Amino acid sequence: MKALLIIAHGSRKAESNQETESLTSKLKNKLNDFDLVAHAFLELAKPDIATGINSLIENGAKHIVVLPYFLANGNHVARDIPDEIAIIEQQASDIQIEMLPHIGSSDSIVDLAVQHIAAR
Amino acid sequence: MKALLIIAHGSRKAESNQETESLTSKLKNKLNDFDLVAHAFLELAKPDIATGINSLIENGAKHIVVLPYFLANGNHVARDIPDEIAIIEQQASDIQIEMLPHIGSSDSIVDLAVQHIAAR
Repeated sequence: MKALLIIAHGSRKAESNQETESLTSKLKNKLNDFDLVAHAFLELAKPDIATGINSLIENGAKHIVVLPYFLANGNHVARDIPDEIAIIEQQASDIQIEMLPHIGSSDSIVDLAVQHIAAR
Repeated sequence: MKALLIIAHGSRKAESNQETESLTSKLKNKLNDFDLVAHAFLELAKPDIATGINSLIENGAKHIVVLPYFLANGNHVARDIPDEIAIIEQQASDIQIEMLPHIGSSDSIVDLAVQHIAAR
């Protein structure tokens, strides 16, 4: 069973976290090759990364693809998220966890920005 | 003279800030209705927002469009950036500063995520 976990930064502001929840719902409808799609937050909001991954494992996931929902490859993406995943991998050695590049590394982000600016 | 200022979070990691610089260069080539395109960082990196805006004004900008390059409408987007802009507006009352919605509010972000996941 294959799962996608979207990891966003997390905010003290509920409205901000709801944007991640909304994205997760929309992706559930669009990603047919994943049995489970969920989200977690690096900090400031729940569920945290360990809770998010463990919940997917409890629901039967054997292969978890992690999408860092961050615009730039800062310390959160390069260090903090991999560190948390490494701890979980030690505890669940039969689960394959694969980390994608951060969303901001997509070449299409330039065209999305152009579109966003033009639509104002 | 019309300018675009991309405001990113900023990182202690130079590589992360270079992603914003690279985006700015690419947008310069794609946005024909802006005379100036520049970037600034909310924190941890230079130029800061005040320096970025003042530099555009020194270069002749009268209308500055600000793009918050953030995925979610957290406190940085809802409070910190507007607070900094409000201070600058008081000092430069002849300059029109317009803040766009944050990049993550673009509907197209869902399709970009689908594409990004499929391309792995």
